[in-house]
Amino acid sequence: MKQTLIEYVISRLNLLGITNIFGVPGDYSFPINGAICEDKRFRWIGTCNELNASYAAGGYARIKGLAALCTTQGVGELSAINGIAGAYSEYLPIFHLVGMQPSTTWKSHVYMHHTLGTEEHDVFFKMSKYVYCAQAILTPENCISEMERLIGAALYNWRPVYIGIPKDYASSMIQENVSITKNNTMYIKSDSSSAVRAVVTAIVEVVQKAKTVCILPGILISRLGLYDTALALLNRSGLVFASTPMDKGVLDEMHPSYIGMYFGHYGDPEVYSFVESCNCILNLGVMMTEINTGRFTSKLDFSKVIDIMHHHVRIGSSIFQGVEMKYVLQELAKHLSPRCTNVKTLDVRDLGLPKGSPDDPIKVEYLYPRLAQFFKPADTIIVDVGTSFLPLIYARLPARATFHNSSLWASIGWATPAAFGASLANSEQRRTILITGDGAHQMSVQEISQFPSHRLKPIIFVLNNGGYLIERIIGGSKIDTCNDVASWDYHELPKAFGCSDWFTAKVTTCGELDQAMRIIERCETGAYIEIVTGREFAAFMSEFYRLSIQMLH
Amino acid sequence: MKQTLIEYVISRLNLLGITNIFGVPGDYSFPINGAICEDKRFRWIGTCNELNASYAAGGYARIKGLAALCTTQGVGELSAINGIAGAYSEYLPIFHLVGMQPSTTWKSHVYMHHTLGTEEHDVFFKMSKYVYCAQAILTPENCISEMERLIGAALYNWRPVYIGIPKDYASSMIQENVSITKNNTMYIKSDSSSAVRAVVTAIVEVVQKAKTVCILPGILISRLGLYDTALALLNRSGLVFASTPMDKGVLDEMHPSYIGMYFGHYGDPEVYSFVESCNCILNLGVMMTEINTGRFTSKLDFSKVIDIMHHHVRIGSSIFQGVEMKYVLQELAKHLSPRCTNVKTLDVRDLGLPKGSPDDPIKVEYLYPRLAQFFKPADTIIVDVGTSFLPLIYARLPARATFHNSSLWASIGWATPAAFGASLANSEQRRTILITGDGAHQMSVQEISQFPSHRLKPIIFVLNNGGYLIERIIGGSKIDTCNDVASWDYHELPKAFGCSDWFTAKVTTCGELDQAMRIIERCETGAYIEIVTGREFAAFMSEFYRLSIQMLH
Repeated sequence: MKQTLIEYVISRLNLLGITNIFGVPGDYSFPINGAICEDKRFRWIGTCNELNASYAAGGYARIKGLAALCTTQGVGELSAINGIAGAYSEYLPIFHLVGMQPSTTWKSHVYMHHTLGTEEHDVFFKMSKYVYCAQAILTPENCISEMERLIGAALYNWRPVYIGIPKDYASSMIQENVSITKNNTMYIKSDSSSAVRAVVTAIVEVVQKAKTVCILPGILISRLGLYDTALALLNRSGLVFASTPMDKGVLDEMHPSYIGMYFGHYGDPEVYSFVESCNCILNLGVMMTEINTGRFTSKLDFSKVIDIMHHHVRIGSSIFQGVEMKYVLQELAKHLSPRCTNVKTLDVRDLGLPKGSPDDPIKVEYLYPRLAQFFKPADTIIVDVGTSFLPLIYARLPARATFHNSSLWASIGWATPAAFGASLANSEQRRTILITGDGAHQMSVQEISQFPSHRLKPIIFVLNNGGYLIERIIGGSKIDTCNDVASWDYHELPKAFGCSDWFTAKVTTCGELDQAMRIIERCETGAYIEIVTGREFAAFMSEFYRLSIQMLH
Repeated sequence: MKQTLIEYVISRLNLLGITNIFGVPGDYSFPINGAICEDKRFRWIGTCNELNASYAAGGYARIKGLAALCTTQGVGELSAINGIAGAYSEYLPIFHLVGMQPSTTWKSHVYMHHTLGTEEHDVFFKMSKYVYCAQAILTPENCISEMERLIGAALYNWRPVYIGIPKDYASSMIQENVSITKNNTMYIKSDSSSAVRAVVTAIVEVVQKAKTVCILPGILISRLGLYDTALALLNRSGLVFASTPMDKGVLDEMHPSYIGMYFGHYGDPEVYSFVESCNCILNLGVMMTEINTGRFTSKLDFSKVIDIMHHHVRIGSSIFQGVEMKYVLQELAKHLSPRCTNVKTLDVRDLGLPKGSPDDPIKVEYLYPRLAQFFKPADTIIVDVGTSFLPLIYARLPARATFHNSSLWASIGWATPAAFGASLANSEQRRTILITGDGAHQMSVQEISQFPSHRLKPIIFVLNNGGYLIERIIGGSKIDTCNDVASWDYHELPKAFGCSDWFTAKVTTCGELDQAMRIIERCETGAYIEIVTGREFAAFMSEFYRLSIQMLH
């Protein structure tokens, strides 16, 4: 069948399950925008700007696995690049369609719009190579093979790819007629072959010999859709697991094998002692980042850690390259012997009951336990970078609830658009709950206006404490004036942004927050709660961090 | 005097006249933020996000010449990079201070936050090299010489520079004690030397021989502070000038030598014929971009054009490198003989009187002439990329009014934060008027909340026509659904964003718009007018473009 380049490209993406494409239109992308609008298999998901589109696509990919984004050359792609870098660092494969200036203008000594006023048409392509795992500029001749290369790279690396499409080429006919397989596993290089079996045998040997073993499950389990596999491994082996902050909620925190948060000196000291005392730690993809290690306060003996990573396994000083996490976990689930002796009777500690009376101002001791109480099974909880993230780590999640944060890339403002993307990806039965600070929310606030067009009903809590609270705490008084943000009436924004039927409230006391939460339980619309805590919250928070370990219940 | 690296750096910037630093704080930038907050010579100008900070810094630089920006590594600098690229393409020197992760973490195999989860600390530095004219990562040892190199590059190229400052180095003491000159002209390589005189002699010879001569003044005149020089040249020579769209308002449109807009087939045909018929065209820095050439419909014979550019002059096929526009214009103003014969009696045509009755809906024939009538001498008019830009090109500006657009980089959403930056730079006597479409405004709307903290009183007109109108017009119906934007109650936003004393109105008829404009004339606060035109405006606009030439009065 004869088709245009862009028809081919989006059809190929559709075979991967892509149906929603986030973005902002632009004249160099018109043929892409047009093809998407005309093809009934797709929905165009417009956002207010491209950075927010990339965040939203990332939020969507957290739920659905893959996402797609479309922007124009230069202005659009560079606006999105921070979100793409975040997707790269935190394993979110985004197919980024970039509408480029026509190839006819590349060598014609003319200064097109969306350029630096030079003749270099590929300068942005060059700039962005670090934050995509693969890139191509498509032509009618190369588009089939290049698309296979890009898809292969995205699915192998689970990271964004750059699909540059010159405007004139987009509408050009391509001649080839190939049959395309739907089998994406072709991109995974190893299978349950002898290499995997050998590695698994080695792991099993270490585990069986170890007196105490603990599993640390990482986000890759969730990203790669290995939840069931990891659960089978847990259930069969009887091994316990602890969570690291970036990876919180990857496995069900109500599972009997869950022992709590492992977070260096910031976490539960009993969990800390137990994990570090284990003879063997099975690390299922956890990245040893600054946050995951409690700012390097965790002191794991890496000779006792077995790293089962995306494409390799490390046991001691031996590294087995090219063995895929997916197959290693599948084999491990079959071959680990059941054991009960390992189950340490650690009570999972959480935030306990909210402390405060109805007329009290909202302090941390009330707020975070109350939020934790509010969570329900299967909730999708999205927490922006900042002060809220740390206390909420200690909230024990209800069954099947998931917790999304961005503690490696840590770009504040990420969560509001990400919540939109996640909400769009979620089934109607799951609530999407966004918890964000005022400073973060100000970055990308306009994206709340996207929910109504898609009849989505998020629950949004905005902490109004007058600035970048986390930075007040860690930066000290010297930079205090830099940490002020503009004074907004947050609860009035949803109406102005077209979320006219939402339940909105501004709450300043514990009783008001309770009342608002009770209304949300019954209401059929989106909800947006401005929680005013004032600046003194900073002092409470500092204290909270200092005492966080003692506060755990 | 012993001082820290960051104390040195900001003191050095202060010698250039930098007093306001735009940005968003971040933990890697804390020492920079702290030094700025503690130094009474500076004001920290916070914005809601980094892209908007870069736009605001650009707006500020349009008025003041130079600007400074501070963001954190990775998340911050990449968010700002689109605005930096725009500043690069449109000649706005921004000193960008980037707070980097401590040098102690560079080789320690740890994954810090705001990284891609790799050990490469300089990946963002490498990515961004294309959009800065110079970059450095400062150390206590190199900071003095590197700062001189960066300042030299910024002032020579009139483009952004990247000043990377590792967190630990920022607070390190530097030993050297150098006396720093305030004389920035040291960065301009040529002066009124023999080279300049030779070039000017050659130009004068061509001009004197030519029967008809026309000047095209470019934005560099404004950027480089050469307004008075160019005016002297005009006044002495008696030569006429026409404006190109990107460069509109660089010289006073009420000057008797002004003949109108030269904009290829989109402009006044009389101006077009006259300019293209001239024996000599003195191009003072105009870039022959897609927009400036009326999408390549202008047909200048380049053998008749003398290009007086930033660092070179072209006469015919001869290029004189290393002669500075500044000195060439100064010399030219002295040596061009006065002539009157050249003055072509072209009446400058403008948008004429608004057409419509008070109860009529707001059509293009009413709106743009009415906006033009509203403009006053010395207004700073900032028009976002999109539909409004083109008709407003034909508005004849009152004396000393300036007109700012971004027709080369053309990043929609630019104007709202740029208006904040420009307003901050403006004296209180000058009004700052922002005219933006809804699609562009949605990109960066939150920045209106910055005006009140600085007691600024902008006048903002937002055209609510339900989407990306310019794209509906040029993209056609195929992409129409992509061009919808979320439905907002724009006039309710200022209150929610803390602009509580502003005059706000939503107008749908010519009479209502008139009434709102009359109130603005008297009011002492900021003003925000939502002008509802509906989608049918698109049809009018298309017609307007088609008929634009006939419509000129």
